[in-house]
Amino acid sequence: MTKFNFSKRVPADGTDAVGVILKAAADPKIISFAGGLPAPELFPVKAMKEAVDQVFAERGQEVMQYGAAKGVTALRELVLQRVKEKENVTGQLDNVLMTTGSEQALDLVGKAFVNPGDTVLVEQPTYLCALDVFKSYGANFVGVEMDEAGMKMDALEEALKAHPEAKLVYTVPNFQNPTGRTMALKRREKLAELAAKYDVYVLEDNPYGEIRFKGQHVPAVKSFDKTGHVFYMGTFSKTLAPGFRLGWVVADEAVVNKLTVLKQSADLHTDNLAQYAVVEFLKHNDLDAHVKQISDLYGQRKALMTEGLEKYFPQGVKYTDPEGGMFLWVEVPGVEDTVELFKQCLEHNVAFVPGDPFYAGEPQPGAFRLNYSNAQEDQIKAGMKQLGEALQDEGEN
Amino acid sequence: MTKFNFSKRVPADGTDAVGVILKAAADPKIISFAGGLPAPELFPVKAMKEAVDQVFAERGQEVMQYGAAKGVTALRELVLQRVKEKENVTGQLDNVLMTTGSEQALDLVGKAFVNPGDTVLVEQPTYLCALDVFKSYGANFVGVEMDEAGMKMDALEEALKAHPEAKLVYTVPNFQNPTGRTMALKRREKLAELAAKYDVYVLEDNPYGEIRFKGQHVPAVKSFDKTGHVFYMGTFSKTLAPGFRLGWVVADEAVVNKLTVLKQSADLHTDNLAQYAVVEFLKHNDLDAHVKQISDLYGQRKALMTEGLEKYFPQGVKYTDPEGGMFLWVEVPGVEDTVELFKQCLEHNVAFVPGDPFYAGEPQPGAFRLNYSNAQEDQIKAGMKQLGEALQDEGEN
Repeated sequence: MTKFNFSKRVPADGTDAVGVILKAAADPKIISFAGGLPAPELFPVKAMKEAVDQVFAERGQEVMQYGAAKGVTALRELVLQRVKEKENVTGQLDNVLMTTGSEQALDLVGKAFVNPGDTVLVEQPTYLCALDVFKSYGANFVGVEMDEAGMKMDALEEALKAHPEAKLVYTVPNFQNPTGRTMALKRREKLAELAAKYDVYVLEDNPYGEIRFKGQHVPAVKSFDKTGHVFYMGTFSKTLAPGFRLGWVVADEAVVNKLTVLKQSADLHTDNLAQYAVVEFLKHNDLDAHVKQISDLYGQRKALMTEGLEKYFPQGVKYTDPEGGMFLWVEVPGVEDTVELFKQCLEHNVAFVPGDPFYAGEPQPGAFRLNYSNAQEDQIKAGMKQLGEALQDEGEN
Repeated sequence: MTKFNFSKRVPADGTDAVGVILKAAADPKIISFAGGLPAPELFPVKAMKEAVDQVFAERGQEVMQYGAAKGVTALRELVLQRVKEKENVTGQLDNVLMTTGSEQALDLVGKAFVNPGDTVLVEQPTYLCALDVFKSYGANFVGVEMDEAGMKMDALEEALKAHPEAKLVYTVPNFQNPTGRTMALKRREKLAELAAKYDVYVLEDNPYGEIRFKGQHVPAVKSFDKTGHVFYMGTFSKTLAPGFRLGWVVADEAVVNKLTVLKQSADLHTDNLAQYAVVEFLKHNDLDAHVKQISDLYGQRKALMTEGLEKYFPQGVKYTDPEGGMFLWVEVPGVEDTVELFKQCLEHNVAFVPGDPFYAGEPQPGAFRLNYSNAQEDQIKAGMKQLGEALQDEGEN
């Protein structure tokens, strides 16, 4: 058998801990809070089918031909309109690039900015796929402490002083993956200010912002950006259809142009059919009403989950209480090995994602992520009971 | 204005020569042979619409939900079946990864194998986007001489001896972009043999292989691979719809697994709607018959183009006579500056892509690429006359 000589960017065998966990959690007898999927029962299948019919009727040849690297102009205009309305983020057409899901936006920004050895500052904990992407470009990570109001700006400024070479700050400000926390308004203003002061870029990743079921919306960090240091990312994956792989970046034109060059090398352009389908969908449907349905459902599921936490979990367990999004974060005191805890919970037929892979630095033992968007109500009730029992057992060992 | 500190992977400003050329060629009064688009009038719009209807009727929720990183299983099976039938390339499901166009396959292989400073051997000239991708990962290029039967194997072996550190050989064996040349059967066998002997990988990029309008099909280099050194790439962009961005890699399972890890970081997975649409299309339609239509049309257009070359071009001009694909290659003797020649031809309202950017090393002056798939018959006739006049003028200067 040939032994392949992979590049330094390729992770070693046996490092895909999350893959192993998701595989274990896929057993049909397991109630899984491990994944990160939207509720498929709310996908607007009929309306999207009508949108696709319209696309084929009006521009069948165009949709099957090669398209523009920056994306379909009509969709970029709709995206601009929406980020202005929702996030107070303003821009012209040259400030927006459509990407193949927001995962590609992460990848392009990583490729465009992170030289091997460059320092990237991340929330502690943070979105694990972002760690994978930046790692593949040779990033060194510095974790920045969070509290209930998101990344702490005093901790960030300390880190920026200690790491004057820092290149990029990565943040998920709304209903963060994995913690469900939201960054406070004043911190957003401060973050934009620190970015300019220390000449460091901020990658603001906002997949969940519109899925708010409680409290007041907080405008994007990008809305406070006066110097072009903030790059804003969004997606239709949580509001419409992740299977269509449609995300975007809003940034300074010089940045968008370079990301476009790399986008051409990455996949030439994003699928035309998905882009035009969403243009038609948005013309004929009320996305706000649809997003409200999603938010209402997720709010109910979150409430059921925290009820279960209160009812079944041992004393002393801490958890976040998000106002939107898809995840909450649990911290069980006294646990030494979270993966071991995961295995015990699997024996009780319930699964989550252990916290460890979300940490750039030393993980906090006993922390894990729960997803509430993709479980039915009866599964949440039963699953939280089973999880509570597993944790009680753990306490007794 | 902020001056952005991009990574070393990002090309400098003003290096997108081809972008400038395509922009100039887009002027409606110009007859352009510069692009590389399929003939849109042959896209099977009606049949594809029916396929998409079927997808929404049968699996609306599934198609809108997140999908698998390796791609839709049914599509991977159909791809395996087709590469076995057409190319004598055999494999199991674990040997195939769906990619977001074959451009992404290039990108993933580049990322997975090319460390900064690694040597990549390429045909001289070669597909310019492949140069861009490998360059972005820090490749050093060594050009390998071609003749009418493709990359010369004696030249390749010399280069492999001179560069024992070489990591990858990149080839487009069928109707190569830009030259239209096809690699002879014996050279393919030899290439697989040299790859094993010198422990170097071969990336075989075959977007055009099925579009043959003359001569006998030659099986893939991969069909001679006994050691896993050859990675085979294909795409539906030339046979069905480039706008859907569907390509694939067939390789050793260990390679496919690592490419999949990088694919997850790149865009999680390829658009589900496009993948399922093609599955349905292939169930209910005869792709071979459709490909024959395409090949027949391109054959007619190629014939018109070479007739024009014979009739209008100055004595001494050489050109290739491809048996398939979308491009032919012209060499005009005595030209010093091909970009200057391009500008003169623009004044005669006709455009091509100058050969320079297709060369990893020293370009051959006076060489350029002509595309015949995307021009109507009357455009080809008029355009070749104009081009001939421009070249006659050039000869007189």
